[in-house]
Amino acid sequence: MTSADPGRFLTTAARTRVGDVVAALKDMFGPRLSTVLTVREQHGRGEALDAGAPPDAVVYPESTAEVSQIVTLCAANDVPVIPYGAGTSVEGHVSAPYGGICIDVSRMNQVLAVHAEDGDCVVQPGITRGTLNAYLRDSGLFFPVDPGADASIGGMLSTRASGTTTVRYGGMPQQVMALEAVLADGRVVRCGTRARKSSAGYDLVRMFVGAEGTLGIVTEVTLRLHGRPEATGTLTSTFSTMRDAVDTATALSMTGMGVARIEFLDEVQVHACNVYSKLELPEQPLLFIEFHGIGVAVEEQVSRAREIAESFSGTVLGGATSEQERDRLWKARHAAYFAALAMRPGCKALIADVCVPISALAECVVETRAAIDAAGLHAPILGHVGDGNFHVIFLLDPHEPDERKRADAVYDALIDRALHAGGTCTGEHGIGYGKRHKLLREAGDDVVALMRAVKTAWDPQGILNPGKIFLSDPTRP
Amino acid sequence: MTSADPGRFLTTAARTRVGDVVAALKDMFGPRLSTVLTVREQHGRGEALDAGAPPDAVVYPESTAEVSQIVTLCAANDVPVIPYGAGTSVEGHVSAPYGGICIDVSRMNQVLAVHAEDGDCVVQPGITRGTLNAYLRDSGLFFPVDPGADASIGGMLSTRASGTTTVRYGGMPQQVMALEAVLADGRVVRCGTRARKSSAGYDLVRMFVGAEGTLGIVTEVTLRLHGRPEATGTLTSTFSTMRDAVDTATALSMTGMGVARIEFLDEVQVHACNVYSKLELPEQPLLFIEFHGIGVAVEEQVSRAREIAESFSGTVLGGATSEQERDRLWKARHAAYFAALAMRPGCKALIADVCVPISALAECVVETRAAIDAAGLHAPILGHVGDGNFHVIFLLDPHEPDERKRADAVYDALIDRALHAGGTCTGEHGIGYGKRHKLLREAGDDVVALMRAVKTAWDPQGILNPGKIFLSDPTRP
Repeated sequence: MTSADPGRFLTTAARTRVGDVVAALKDMFGPRLSTVLTVREQHGRGEALDAGAPPDAVVYPESTAEVSQIVTLCAANDVPVIPYGAGTSVEGHVSAPYGGICIDVSRMNQVLAVHAEDGDCVVQPGITRGTLNAYLRDSGLFFPVDPGADASIGGMLSTRASGTTTVRYGGMPQQVMALEAVLADGRVVRCGTRARKSSAGYDLVRMFVGAEGTLGIVTEVTLRLHGRPEATGTLTSTFSTMRDAVDTATALSMTGMGVARIEFLDEVQVHACNVYSKLELPEQPLLFIEFHGIGVAVEEQVSRAREIAESFSGTVLGGATSEQERDRLWKARHAAYFAALAMRPGCKALIADVCVPISALAECVVETRAAIDAAGLHAPILGHVGDGNFHVIFLLDPHEPDERKRADAVYDALIDRALHAGGTCTGEHGIGYGKRHKLLREAGDDVVALMRAVKTAWDPQGILNPGKIFLSDPTRP
Repeated sequence: MTSADPGRFLTTAARTRVGDVVAALKDMFGPRLSTVLTVREQHGRGEALDAGAPPDAVVYPESTAEVSQIVTLCAANDVPVIPYGAGTSVEGHVSAPYGGICIDVSRMNQVLAVHAEDGDCVVQPGITRGTLNAYLRDSGLFFPVDPGADASIGGMLSTRASGTTTVRYGGMPQQVMALEAVLADGRVVRCGTRARKSSAGYDLVRMFVGAEGTLGIVTEVTLRLHGRPEATGTLTSTFSTMRDAVDTATALSMTGMGVARIEFLDEVQVHACNVYSKLELPEQPLLFIEFHGIGVAVEEQVSRAREIAESFSGTVLGGATSEQERDRLWKARHAAYFAALAMRPGCKALIADVCVPISALAECVVETRAAIDAAGLHAPILGHVGDGNFHVIFLLDPHEPDERKRADAVYDALIDRALHAGGTCTGEHGIGYGKRHKLLREAGDDVVALMRAVKTAWDPQGILNPGKIFLSDPTRP
């Protein structure tokens, strides 16, 4: 996966076809097509640790019709197409191991409609969640899914993203009401409706959500929106042990009080945030807790959360009651990845992602911390612990290849631990190129074969983002 | 669909095969297999208006292994299998138009595990939601999906059921975490995990949810549970016009207060409930509203809901604050179907089910009432209006065939209205046998072809509940 030759698996005949397609697209798209190596390399990588393989060309369509034209041309020539949003994937979703055309949808970034009365909107896939929420600022509504990065809606849909507010509002599966997609043969279909629920046949919307671009290129999305909460209450508490912090999160999530966010940072991550975001938090395991609702309820919830935290020996910090103070803490939380990177300048990050049943969370986090320390690695832990989802940011020195090996071993053991506890090898980052073995380990041969049967039925040529989810592409061995 | 001959489409060779399979199953299952006509007829119908076609035999397995044996035998002989839960489907899901073996899972009705700390449980598909909630009574947890009928969990999963509490807790798609299913060739697979979210490959759990038994026979289900609310507050309000009632529901759902239930009954339904359940409600359009949460919040929510109802000229009835009074009202709501039937003794019911964007709800309900009245039909309207979902219970005299024709015309126009408004032809009852044309009208040829491609890939012989969802079964024309 480090070769810069996008078509290293292709026959000469296939290479000629790719060349023909690139030439034809150049005629159609002019300056909206690039074959510059740095552009291609950036598009083949995203935020993944490994370099990935660059596509043969990057094209920037501005409409569904243009996406359909590109896919139709590629289908006729058996050339792969790889969708690209904001490039924030960490699992190599945008890599082009079989070469092909990267369809960068960043120019398809419009809000097409806001239906405030219905609490929904229609957007193009290239808009980022940040831009969407800025657009909605005066509507009283917001789009809740917050994976940290300012990802594109199309990318979030395709990786089944979630994040800090999922414990209350759900992730992408709960927000996508309908979508338009370009199929493998260039046809355009629309699935779903603007009704809040439906029992009309197979749920193809949920099939595209998390399909990582392997079943179609999503070109329009209808999203649920939510009313901005009337009141927001936050609580920040530090704990002398990691177990106490996680046990507090577990106890909170069991009260059924409807917490909006419960974010955990371990002491290593708190230190990184202090340095990077100029905070003075005690360098101990920490929870950021947030409630959304009507004023009296939020006050009561914060007060009860304080009691629960204190019952686990938590020290509640001066409540971040002002919006300014709250924003400062959340900015620090969102910058956690960059704060972690800044701890070891020159390092690269391998970001682990697992999700386990709540009852297994404390044990799993504590064992993982011990394994990291035993391996002599630098790796903060943080997570959306209300859902049982957490991440390890392994900070690796590229000049010390042994660090990567040790990190991979710790990560492998972490996934085994998560699966053994009844959890999953990825809570929100997806399978991509990087976790295809883990999917097999989690789901088993028979279930992956069912997935592959859908893939083969909908994309018999295997041109849609080949080499992702499945270990070897039957039509591109 | 009224013939009592289950195999009227079958060749002589196929009929012999069915006979062989029934004989073999009789040897295996003894008294747990029935070929009695009344048993077969009841199993081929459910609660649908039309008689449906009976299966050749009904078998009562007690384990996944037994379901697998039955399916394996049927697959080897090209004989259809039709899963059956509590028989509460209203769309002919259990009909056997191509004959075959009905797999009645009612003996597979155990709770296999309750993980209270994680808020989940593992059950067999034949358990009903009522039995499950009775089992959970002392756990502090409950299973929220409430479609009215005491349906089986397997059936609710397969029709993508929802109901009165969906506006707050979600329907079946939001509760099913994992499942075990027997595939068309008899193999047993498990999809999903006990993690609260996952991005691991295609979401096959959501593929089975709503597949109506056409992709596999579900034999085990892992369900999300929710904490019983600490406090419950209700409000009952009557309105002088239907539009005021529905507008109140719309306004409430837009506040983002998190209402747990908003049920609408029109004046015809209120009259029926008064007679049947011995209530003295004013016979006007009515809303039952319920909030769940912590005490102070619920009080505040009820008070605000009262203000909203009054702003639409609602008359708030004496608050049903006692649990006894609340139970009495909800019992009446749940008996609404039987109350409606009791209005015209000897009548049968055609139950309409649509779901529209909230902003279109008032218009849609008002136009539907006018159309019912113009057609001279007896038909109360009621619905889960917080989601935009409502039902018409057409009460039809079997001796007046013209009533059925007029009802079908009103229902057709209602679906057109719902689709035109961006809604769906079924909010929660499913496609089954009865709505296959409507699915085509809603989703279009290309999207239904994508669904069919999955069906064909997973069940190439077409033995799993054939004749449902799709208009003609490619392998059973």
